Amino acid sequence: MLTILKRIVVGRPFRNERLSHTLLPKRIALPVFASDALSSVAYAPDEILLTLALAGVSAVAFSPMVGLAVMVVLLTVVASYRQNVHAYPSGGGDYEIANVNLGKYAGLTVASALLVDYVLTVAVSMSSAATYLTTAVPALHGQQALIATIGVIILALVNLRGVKEAGSVFAVPTYIFMASILGMTLVGVIQAITGQLGEAPSAQFTIVPEEGFDEGLVGIAGAFLLLRAFSSGAAALTGIEAISNGVPTFRKPKSKNAATTLLLLGVIASSMLAGIIFLANATKVHIVLDPATEFLLDGMPLPEDYIQSPAISQIAQTIFGPGSILFFIVVAATGTILVFASNTAFNGFPVLGSILAQDGYLPRQLRTRGDRLAFSNGVLALAAGALVLIIAFNADVTKLIQLYIVGVFISFTISQLGMIRHWGRELKLARDKTVRRRMLRSRTINMVGFGMTALVLMIVLITKFEQGAWIALLAMFVLFLIMWSIRAHYDNVAKELAVDEDASPRALPSRVHAVILVSHVRKPVLRALAYARASRPSRLDAITVDINTEETEHTVRDWEKLDIPVPLTVLASPYRETVTPIMEYVKNMRRDSPRDLIVVYIPEYVVGKWWEQLVHNQTALRIKTRLHFESGVMVASVPWQLKSSEEAKALQDTQ
Amino acid sequence: MLTILKRIVVGRPFRNERLSHTLLPKRIALPVFASDALSSVAYAPDEILLTLALAGVSAVAFSPMVGLAVMVVLLTVVASYRQNVHAYPSGGGDYEIANVNLGKYAGLTVASALLVDYVLTVAVSMSSAATYLTTAVPALHGQQALIATIGVIILALVNLRGVKEAGSVFAVPTYIFMASILGMTLVGVIQAITGQLGEAPSAQFTIVPEEGFDEGLVGIAGAFLLLRAFSSGAAALTGIEAISNGVPTFRKPKSKNAATTLLLLGVIASSMLAGIIFLANATKVHIVLDPATEFLLDGMPLPEDYIQSPAISQIAQTIFGPGSILFFIVVAATGTILVFASNTAFNGFPVLGSILAQDGYLPRQLRTRGDRLAFSNGVLALAAGALVLIIAFNADVTKLIQLYIVGVFISFTISQLGMIRHWGRELKLARDKTVRRRMLRSRTINMVGFGMTALVLMIVLITKFEQGAWIALLAMFVLFLIMWSIRAHYDNVAKELAVDEDASPRALPSRVHAVILVSHVRKPVLRALAYARASRPSRLDAITVDINTEETEHTVRDWEKLDIPVPLTVLASPYRETVTPIMEYVKNMRRDSPRDLIVVYIPEYVVGKWWEQLVHNQTALRIKTRLHFESGVMVASVPWQLKSSEEAKALQDTQ
Repeated sequence: MLTILKRIVVGRPFRNERLSHTLLPKRIALPVFASDALSSVAYAPDEILLTLALAGVSAVAFSPMVGLAVMVVLLTVVASYRQNVHAYPSGGGDYEIANVNLGKYAGLTVASALLVDYVLTVAVSMSSAATYLTTAVPALHGQQALIATIGVIILALVNLRGVKEAGSVFAVPTYIFMASILGMTLVGVIQAITGQLGEAPSAQFTIVPEEGFDEGLVGIAGAFLLLRAFSSGAAALTGIEAISNGVPTFRKPKSKNAATTLLLLGVIASSMLAGIIFLANATKVHIVLDPATEFLLDGMPLPEDYIQSPAISQIAQTIFGPGSILFFIVVAATGTILVFASNTAFNGFPVLGSILAQDGYLPRQLRTRGDRLAFSNGVLALAAGALVLIIAFNADVTKLIQLYIVGVFISFTISQLGMIRHWGRELKLARDKTVRRRMLRSRTINMVGFGMTALVLMIVLITKFEQGAWIALLAMFVLFLIMWSIRAHYDNVAKELAVDEDASPRALPSRVHAVILVSHVRKPVLRALAYARASRPSRLDAITVDINTEETEHTVRDWEKLDIPVPLTVLASPYRETVTPIMEYVKNMRRDSPRDLIVVYIPEYVVGKWWEQLVHNQTALRIKTRLHFESGVMVASVPWQLKSSEEAKALQDTQ
Repeated sequence: MLTILKRIVVGRPFRNERLSHTLLPKRIALPVFASDALSSVAYAPDEILLTLALAGVSAVAFSPMVGLAVMVVLLTVVASYRQNVHAYPSGGGDYEIANVNLGKYAGLTVASALLVDYVLTVAVSMSSAATYLTTAVPALHGQQALIATIGVIILALVNLRGVKEAGSVFAVPTYIFMASILGMTLVGVIQAITGQLGEAPSAQFTIVPEEGFDEGLVGIAGAFLLLRAFSSGAAALTGIEAISNGVPTFRKPKSKNAATTLLLLGVIASSMLAGIIFLANATKVHIVLDPATEFLLDGMPLPEDYIQSPAISQIAQTIFGPGSILFFIVVAATGTILVFASNTAFNGFPVLGSILAQDGYLPRQLRTRGDRLAFSNGVLALAAGALVLIIAFNADVTKLIQLYIVGVFISFTISQLGMIRHWGRELKLARDKTVRRRMLRSRTINMVGFGMTALVLMIVLITKFEQGAWIALLAMFVLFLIMWSIRAHYDNVAKELAVDEDASPRALPSRVHAVILVSHVRKPVLRALAYARASRPSRLDAITVDINTEETEHTVRDWEKLDIPVPLTVLASPYRETVTPIMEYVKNMRRDSPRDLIVVYIPEYVVGKWWEQLVHNQTALRIKTRLHFESGVMVASVPWQLKSSEEAKALQDTQ
């Protein structure tokens, strides 16, 4: 079957639950959980710069102000989440907080937002990684969509196989990234102080402001543009909630370590953000949305083959020199962290899926977290979604970011509101003064966090709705509807099937009639016969349908030759088909003895290869389906393993 | 399910076997079976004319000669098939003749050729019908592929619904067609005699010969072109074998009536062919492959919007006047007969498929001829194949005909060879002088037929291989391989499963262990419990897998609350998945008691809507599949019909 092919391609599966049994120390947990959050520093500064550049170079000077605002929000959200991880150490994250404190609708909204967010994380991070790759290898320019697509496929395959190593694989490159960016900042500051800091390659370009912004950032339009730049920069906050989902994997004391790691994350991310924006201004990095129309060099438009590099790349080029080893290290580390950020999504998405399935919002078979199949479904769904986005938007990071931020801030805002409620409830019960004071402090922090994230959410909605956020909201809405319908369906079925409290154990059928379906007298039928007889029914019949006179005579002859002590009835089939005569026979039996149980024994071939299933069992399957509609009838499948199934069995057993 | 949707779209199915219970008189049988053969007169003359036109207008004068040669072959084949229908009145046709007389390989070759031939009949006939439609409605010119596609889809739907009326629907239009063509010929002859016969619209065009044919039909190239024209004209023979497949539907004496009908068919078809070619020459109809490059009007190329009409259309226009009622009747009748020819293919293809399935060359579930599903599969496969061809060749009749003829003549030739062998065998047994004389005469006719069809087959292969026949041959080869593999597989399985002659009826297992799979304590599980207890096993256990602690505790509590007299075992699942713990439990039971039969009772939901199947039963299906690999284990499905399944049941019962 396809499973066997997948096993050969994808290798021995690894039980991901084993992974979660390894508890992580802070120094490993930080890189594992922080890669998503830290990686956004690869594109957030660029977005601030290019949004402001729409109003000309004077507006770009406001970037430190915008960056500062983003940092304030970031540190506030970090502080808020430190409260989350203490209050909810089970790893349910924003979904659990919303569910428990605000009800099912809020929880499902957060779940939809998170699902969309995971897909966008992969799309944005892989597109950005592709851009950085073409920076290092200019020949690949223009192929970002292809590179990103290949990257997603490789990541999906790696995750389908299962990751054997623990977080140590993530640790080293993440620390290299942190070191290289912070180190670059340090060197840049020193160069600036000693006056050795050069200018970025794009410093010489004049920026042509968009229409209406000739005077720079003035008036309502200017203020709106500032807000737009801010909301684009808010992309730097994506990924902070990952730690709240991973509290159980920390060593004890889990909440305290998680909170400390969050703090470290916040400080490091803010420093990086500040450093890059400072250096971008100091080296006069100019980044615009469309270089062809917005840049002028000595009054002339740029040549057509001009490739715009991201801010980090230009800064590294300026500080370390173009083509130097350190330049490549910075660019490579940035690309790697972006790939890791995508990988975090591949780990988190199936986990969220299994939680939702456990709550009945997704098909139940997905709730078995350790099951390779359920896990694979999640990986494939995520990869498919990301690929659709990457191809639809041609791996354009700026366009994808318009969709990215709204989901993140919806779940931030709702979870902060949930925390406010949480503390409210706890305060009603708590008596101890120290505890109450701590709770009040936490609630205040969450209130500030809520206010801020709600404000940012408003700004994001207003500034980005037309630009693409509506797509993300639509996707969230559709997911919400689907999950709601599934849950409603399961609830209805549960009601339909609920056992009446006072009902006595069902009255047993008095007698059992066994019926064996015979086509040829071969070993599978003899086995069915043996099994049927072993169950000692009140009555045992064998039936065969007369499609082809020659064949039927052969069957009857073989039956008699073997002296089988069970009578064989031949059903006529005037229209030359199998299903109707059998159904009429069974219905007649039911009419004659309505209180008896009818068990139909159907031999089934167990096949090894996928195509063999097309040529066997098809009629048996149809008969089974029709029989299932009859009450008082049960179908017993008597398997016969064909030789070809033995390899398939061996493979299955090792799973 | 999809079935329900199809039923609503396609209507109540009709038992096609009922159709075949109505025996046809000759006057109805002729139109029913002859439409395929007669319809080829709509394109065969055109092919002769345009192939000869490659050598200039002088070559076109040879068309009567070519037509005569085609007629000779046609009448020979008709005479040969009159022997076939006497010798094999069972309706097996060429396939049966080849199988019985020449062995399995020959039979399968004929089957592959016939299957490909059916597809091409639909493609060629519908494409030609589309061309005739655009002749009557010039605005539709250029849309032939679209029209043909829509036509095929409509035909497929009509056949999926089932045809209620018998052959009378076919009779009237076919007779109108015969009358109109023969009538047109008569009028044309009278006009020619009285000197009133006009010239065709294309008579004024000069034909530009292809390179190398400036001197007309000379040399080897000229002879080769003559042969090409002949082999294209041999398309007039397609459809003759249809009567040999339909002998059982004739009234008694079946063979004699079938033979007489064949004779009528041959005479009428020859007359039509002769008439059209004569009139084409008399009215100077000029038809070429590419009007843009091969036609000149007063030394200038034609305007771009020139639309080339088929010969019949031009002749009717000349004789009856353009736009006259009789002109439209002729064109409409021709289009209709072409549609009927396609319909014959839609009837014959599934029948051939069921015969092949009966012999094991196709999946067994297709052998039930009266089963709507098996029949539908054939209709859909034929429609799909025809659509692929129509779209790939853009409904170009000339291109499609290159593929058409080779399959027909392969089955002609092989069946004639088979008949020669048949008479050889019969002659060895026959003693009576009159019978022997008749047999010798039949054998001579079949020998001449064989010689001629083999010769034509060679010509067709040589002249048409490059032009497209290789595609048809490749398709036949692929079909041959697939059918051979299926048969080989079934033979291997039969060997594997054959009962040893001296084996005693299998020793019965001594005891039966019943195991019930429990997830929630709901009505389906209680039913499974009741059924399991009714079968009075030696031992009865219930198991549930601990995925979610809360859920499991709930289940155990409910179990105890209901005082169920069966012990419930909770299986631990460290990796949070269902399948492995159950398999280990079952394997342990097998190890402990290897001679006992284990019956696993799995509750299954019977759903109504297709998407409900995605959210139920998935895990049950996987467990069943894994259990089937274990020997000594049987799975009993205990159905629980959800409310939504009741409508589905009602629909199913009326099928």
